[in-house]
Amino acid sequence: MPTDLDRLFEHLRFPSISTDSRHVADVRANAEWLKGQFLAMGLQTELHETPGHPLVVARNEQIAGRPTVLIYGHYDVQPVDPLELWESAPFEPEVRDGKIWGRGGADNKGQHFVHLLGAEKTIQEEGQLPLNVIFLIEGEEEIGSPNLVPFLKEHVDDLACDIIAVSDTGMVAPSVPTLGYGLRGITCLEVTVKGPSGDLHSGVYGGCVANPATAAARMIASLHHADGKIAVEGFYDDVIALEDWEREMWAQVPGATNQDFLATTGSPVPFGEPGYSMAEQLWARPTVEVNGMGGGYQGEGSKTVLPAEAMFKLSCRLVPGQDPDKVQQQVEDHLRKHLPTGVTVEIYKGHSGKAYHNDPHSIYGKAAQAALAKSFGREPVLIREGGSIPIIQDMKEILGADSLMLGLALPDCQIHAPNENFAVENFEKGIEMSRELLKELSKI
Amino acid sequence: MPTDLDRLFEHLRFPSISTDSRHVADVRANAEWLKGQFLAMGLQTELHETPGHPLVVARNEQIAGRPTVLIYGHYDVQPVDPLELWESAPFEPEVRDGKIWGRGGADNKGQHFVHLLGAEKTIQEEGQLPLNVIFLIEGEEEIGSPNLVPFLKEHVDDLACDIIAVSDTGMVAPSVPTLGYGLRGITCLEVTVKGPSGDLHSGVYGGCVANPATAAARMIASLHHADGKIAVEGFYDDVIALEDWEREMWAQVPGATNQDFLATTGSPVPFGEPGYSMAEQLWARPTVEVNGMGGGYQGEGSKTVLPAEAMFKLSCRLVPGQDPDKVQQQVEDHLRKHLPTGVTVEIYKGHSGKAYHNDPHSIYGKAAQAALAKSFGREPVLIREGGSIPIIQDMKEILGADSLMLGLALPDCQIHAPNENFAVENFEKGIEMSRELLKELSKI
Repeated sequence: MPTDLDRLFEHLRFPSISTDSRHVADVRANAEWLKGQFLAMGLQTELHETPGHPLVVARNEQIAGRPTVLIYGHYDVQPVDPLELWESAPFEPEVRDGKIWGRGGADNKGQHFVHLLGAEKTIQEEGQLPLNVIFLIEGEEEIGSPNLVPFLKEHVDDLACDIIAVSDTGMVAPSVPTLGYGLRGITCLEVTVKGPSGDLHSGVYGGCVANPATAAARMIASLHHADGKIAVEGFYDDVIALEDWEREMWAQVPGATNQDFLATTGSPVPFGEPGYSMAEQLWARPTVEVNGMGGGYQGEGSKTVLPAEAMFKLSCRLVPGQDPDKVQQQVEDHLRKHLPTGVTVEIYKGHSGKAYHNDPHSIYGKAAQAALAKSFGREPVLIREGGSIPIIQDMKEILGADSLMLGLALPDCQIHAPNENFAVENFEKGIEMSRELLKELSKI
Repeated sequence: MPTDLDRLFEHLRFPSISTDSRHVADVRANAEWLKGQFLAMGLQTELHETPGHPLVVARNEQIAGRPTVLIYGHYDVQPVDPLELWESAPFEPEVRDGKIWGRGGADNKGQHFVHLLGAEKTIQEEGQLPLNVIFLIEGEEEIGSPNLVPFLKEHVDDLACDIIAVSDTGMVAPSVPTLGYGLRGITCLEVTVKGPSGDLHSGVYGGCVANPATAAARMIASLHHADGKIAVEGFYDDVIALEDWEREMWAQVPGATNQDFLATTGSPVPFGEPGYSMAEQLWARPTVEVNGMGGGYQGEGSKTVLPAEAMFKLSCRLVPGQDPDKVQQQVEDHLRKHLPTGVTVEIYKGHSGKAYHNDPHSIYGKAAQAALAKSFGREPVLIREGGSIPIIQDMKEILGADSLMLGLALPDCQIHAPNENFAVENFEKGIEMSRELLKELSKI
C-alpha cells in the first residue's frame, strides 16, 4: 500500500513541462494519472481536451442543499534549466532535511495533492464528502492558462460554486498558517522615444539635438516624487484605503517586517510612499515600476553616440478600487504631458488585469481560518499578495465566486528555480487543513 | 605620365585598414609607396617603425631664417563593411558625378595628397620650397594614434615647427572654403546604479524596494534643466564666451543654419541651452550627453522584473576654458549629490581630452585665410568643430605649435561609411590651396 508521500512522488515524477513541446506526452500522461486518482476515489472524472493540454475535472455526486466548493490547481510545471544547479534530479523526488525536493513539489502538485488526499481520507472515513466538491486541475498555468477562460465560460453551469479554494500561494513563515485574501492587479505600457533620424556622433551634433535617452530618463523621473510617491495625476484617486485591522495584523506577521524584506531582497533601506511599512507597500499600495529601459551603446568601453531612440517598459501593480484601463490612460496622459522638447513618443498599451480582494471575515473566510487554525495549531495570519494571479479574478468574474488562498509554500521553496521544495510538515498539515476545510464549509 | 588623379588612385587602391591584422602588409605597402612619392620629390624621407604601423616623415633641406610648417595626415583607413552597400568597390576608385569614390578619398588620403602635390608642383616650378616643410603622415589615426604621442615626444627637436597644417576636417558646403580654429574636448563617465542583490519580481516586491532603473533615470534627469541647460553646479564657470565676430560670422555660414542642422540630423526642432543657435551650441558650448543607458528587460514583450542594477554612459563635450578633470569631478559630485534613496552607485571615470582653440586672426591664420581665398575664389568662413581631434591638442602640447584646420571634405563625403567620396573640385582646388599656403607662410 503506497503512502501519501509515495503517491505524491508518483505525481512529481511526470516531467509535465507545459511550455516544452517535447513533453506533450508527459503532460498528458500526468493528466491521465491524475484522472486515475480521482476515479479511484469514486469521483466522476473527465479529461477535458483543449487546443493545448487537457484539464482534469472531478466531482462527487450532487448533494442537494449543501454548498459547493471548487478546488483549483495545476499539474503542469516550469522548465528545469539550469539542470546543473539541482542538488537532486528534478523529476526524481526525494526527502532531505524535512523537505520534498523536486520540480512541482510546491508549484503546484504538492499543494493541490493535499486537497485530493484530504477529500480521499474524508470519503474513506465518512463514506462520502460532506458537501459538493469540484476539482479543476489544469495543465497550462505555467504558460498563462490560455484555454482556461474559454473552458470556464463554456462550463459556467457545470462549474457553478459558492466558493473556490486555491493552494498556490505562500505561507509567510514555517508553521504560520496563512490566508490570502487579496492580489494586486497589473497594467503595462511600453514607451519608445525618438529623436534624430539616425544615431548621431555626440561630438559633431551633441548639444543642439534632443537626446532621446535623456528625454526617456526625464519621463521616467517624472513618474515619482523623490520619496517614492507616484506623481501621476489621479493615480491614487480610486485606491481603497487599508483598514485598521489590516495594518495591525500585518505589523505582527512573522517574516513580513521591514527587516525581513530587506534581508530577502538585499535592498539597503526601505523605500516607497511615505507612511507605509514595506508589507503595506507590497500588499495594498499601487506601483509604477520600470521593468526595462535602454538606449544607445551599452557594451564595454565608450562609443560617443547620440542615440536615435530610447525605450522603457513600465508595469503598474494595482490595488482594489483601481481600474486598469483608467490607470493605463492616466500613465499615458502623464507621459505625453511630460514629453520633453525635441523628441516624439510612441506608447504601446500592454496587458492588464484587475486587482483581486475578498473579505476574509466572510462566512467562507471564517471557515478557512478555522481549518487553518485547527490543522496548524495556531491562528492564521491574513495577508494579501503583491503579485497578480489573473485566474483568480477570471474565476470571480465568470463563476461569481471568491477564492480562499490557502498558501502552503514557504518563502524558500524555490518555485520556478532549481531545487524547488515543499516542506513535509506542510504536506501533512495541508492534508489535515483540507479535511477541516471541507468540514467547516459543509456547515455553512 | 600619370595625372594627379591617377596618382591619387594609386594611393587609394591600397586597402590600408589599420584595425584589421589581415591588412598589416597592405598598410606597410602603402607607407612604402608614399615614401617613394616623397623621395621622388627630392625630400629626405624616412619610414619610422613603431610597435604598430609605420609613420612616414619627409622634409626638405633646412632653409635658414624661414618658418617651418608641419603637414600632418594619415594614410590608414577605416574598414569597409558593409561591403554590399558600396556602389563601386571601395579600393577600386573611380570618378562619377564630379566625385572620387573610394575608401580614404576624403579620410584622409585625398586630403593629405593635395599637400604632397602642392609641394611637388612648387618644387617643379620654383626649384625648391619657399620655407621649411615637414610631412608627418601616420598609419594609425583610425585606431586612435596609439604610437603618435611617443613618437612626437622622442622627436621634439626634429619636428620643431612654427605652425601645423592639417586637412582632415570638413568644408561647410561646396565651394565654401573653411578654416577651422577650434575643437571641443571630451570627458567620459560610466555609472552603475545598484539596488537589490538580484533581479526581483515586480509584483512580489515592487513598491518597497528602490528600482535602480528609476534611480538611474532620476540621476540622468537631474543633469539638465528642462530647456537643455546643464544643471551641474559650476559646469559653465570656466567657459570662454563666444566673441561677437564669431556669432556674426556663424550666422552667415552656408550649411550651418538651424534649418540645415535639422535637415542633416532629422531632429524635429532645435534644442539646447537657450540663447544660442544650433551652430553656436555645437561649436562653442559644452554638453552632457547620454551615450547609452540600460537596465532590466529590453527584449520583446514584457517581463515583470525589478532589475538589480542599471547603467548609463555619459560624455561631456568641452569648450575652451574648461578643464576636463575638473568637469569630470563636477559631474561625479553632482551625480553623488543627486543619488536617490535606496540605491548605491559606482562611477568610473573614463578618458578625457582638452578642447582646442587658436586665433584665426593670427599671422598664421591670416596666411591660411589668404590661401583658401585665392584657391577657392571667395573669403573663407571661420568655424570651430563639435567633435574632438586629440592629436591636434597633443601636437600643441608637445610641439608647441597651433594647427590650421584646412578642411576639404564635404558634408556628404560619407567618411567611415560606405560610398566615401571626395569632390574632384576640392582635390584640384586643394592642390592650389596648398601651393598658396606655402607661399603665404613663407612670407611670415
